[in-house]
Amino acid sequence: MSDLPKRVHIQEEGPREGFQFEKGHIPTQRKIELVDRLSQTGLDHIQIVSFVNPKAVPGMADAEAVVRGITPRPEVAYTALWLNDKGFERALAVGTIEVKGSVILAASPAFLKRNQNKTPQEQLAAQHAIVRMYKQNGIEVERGGIMAAFGCNFEGDIPVERVVALVRQLLDVAAQNEVSLRYILLADTMAWATPQSIKRVLGAVRDKFPDVEFALHLHDTRGMGVANAYAGLEMGVTRYDASVAGLGGCPFAGHRGAAGNVCTEDLVFMCEEMGIETGIDIEALIDCARLAEDIVAHPLPGSIMRGGSLRRLL
Amino acid sequence: MSDLPKRVHIQEEGPREGFQFEKGHIPTQRKIELVDRLSQTGLDHIQIVSFVNPKAVPGMADAEAVVRGITPRPEVAYTALWLNDKGFERALAVGTIEVKGSVILAASPAFLKRNQNKTPQEQLAAQHAIVRMYKQNGIEVERGGIMAAFGCNFEGDIPVERVVALVRQLLDVAAQNEVSLRYILLADTMAWATPQSIKRVLGAVRDKFPDVEFALHLHDTRGMGVANAYAGLEMGVTRYDASVAGLGGCPFAGHRGAAGNVCTEDLVFMCEEMGIETGIDIEALIDCARLAEDIVAHPLPGSIMRGGSLRRLL
Repeated sequence: MSDLPKRVHIQEEGPREGFQFEKGHIPTQRKIELVDRLSQTGLDHIQIVSFVNPKAVPGMADAEAVVRGITPRPEVAYTALWLNDKGFERALAVGTIEVKGSVILAASPAFLKRNQNKTPQEQLAAQHAIVRMYKQNGIEVERGGIMAAFGCNFEGDIPVERVVALVRQLLDVAAQNEVSLRYILLADTMAWATPQSIKRVLGAVRDKFPDVEFALHLHDTRGMGVANAYAGLEMGVTRYDASVAGLGGCPFAGHRGAAGNVCTEDLVFMCEEMGIETGIDIEALIDCARLAEDIVAHPLPGSIMRGGSLRRLL
Repeated sequence: MSDLPKRVHIQEEGPREGFQFEKGHIPTQRKIELVDRLSQTGLDHIQIVSFVNPKAVPGMADAEAVVRGITPRPEVAYTALWLNDKGFERALAVGTIEVKGSVILAASPAFLKRNQNKTPQEQLAAQHAIVRMYKQNGIEVERGGIMAAFGCNFEGDIPVERVVALVRQLLDVAAQNEVSLRYILLADTMAWATPQSIKRVLGAVRDKFPDVEFALHLHDTRGMGVANAYAGLEMGVTRYDASVAGLGGCPFAGHRGAAGNVCTEDLVFMCEEMGIETGIDIEALIDCARLAEDIVAHPLPGSIMRGGSLRRLL
């Protein structure tokens, strides 16, 4: 217990996750409302939109309008997701968005084929090209990421050795292009992780790469999100992606019912109750979760917004 | 990781939890249907009804009819809850129900006052009387229990020393009445526990009472149920109460949104995926969870019934 971290950093992905995933139309003004409310909770990193093909993802057709509509706070980094050059250019052009690069590899060839129609070799070549493109544009390449690091709906379990090899590949891509990664994100894209596999994989990569910081991106599809985050805390991980109210889901997971990222306020609750600082006001965040539910007009999976925090009871 | 248990025992409480908590009328035949389906999953202990005042808990007015209607399987223990002599006599009279005694103390005087209108001294005297009554009726006193062991909505945090003292009291009640407890259940009645407090309390009681087996009764009101169970597994706890689909809730918790016990199939999923045997067929249990949702006619909190198990995907 004594080696739980003193402080963690939580990156909010709810707006982007939710607005791209929800079936119903969400008015631009309501998206802006949620982002602005989230920016007042102490969260200092909010991923607010993705710049993707509006025909493929109609819910993101108003991405520029959302970015232009928010009231930016100087202490908050507003980020976006993009999947190709065109999206990157839109992110650069719109302003306000903090544009940093990532190098991303998928641990499952089956998922990679289905999701991007690439082989691992093609993926690696593409990531080299992407890093070069970022460098040419003067964009910092901030992080590496490994998708499906804990298992894949199309391939099954992912051997730990493969994750270790992919960390090496990410570091090599960075080194060969003379950039340095601040951290590497291990993503449980299709919610295969258990607390045990979180510990197994983190133990293996930290053993091989003791100087690299690892972060976790956890999906809660099978209800393991908070438990997996706890296993991460026990392994000293201090950086987590999360989604307010549990907004979102993975459109590529191949089945309905894929929940979004681990719920932000549930994760904040657990951390704060265990004495781990998040810098986030849980009551303000619960209000945001209820707002998110009001906006999407159906129940969202978060627990604390229903069960209530503890300290307010007394 | 290496000291996770090889096998755990999960006691199903969903029927009793759900049928007593749900607002809408549930036909007796549907209750019977759920119990009979649960009995075919590998679960060997199912708490199916409570014998309580039908005016206070109308959903349990048909408790006898439920018990008489099921098709008992010899490998399954069917149990019930009662709160006074009258309930105990009904449990004895109906047949089929495995009648064993418990000694229960509450860790929070504030909760005890509100829930039973007793002081701790009155509670202790009452438990002595109950054990004597069980002995006079030839009933085995199987377990001790501590309610609100991890915190209380009306009192706040519960000092670890108080839980240790209550374990001592339970053992004394047993010894003075010449019975022996098979295990002591620590109940997170109002969902205050975090994985850290699970470890802290279990560490303290096991340190003082190394020969006593401890079990966990976890509520999922704040989304910590699975993470808390994982912390229990890490501490070697092999006995858990759980509720199919997350049925239920605590009527005494003082706020809406109090979820039921940790969801059985989510707990089974985590255990089996980590190589811990439960003896339970996850697919059959998921079918039961969907049946439970159909019976109560509103969404229930379980995750695996929506996200799906893993092994079926491949």
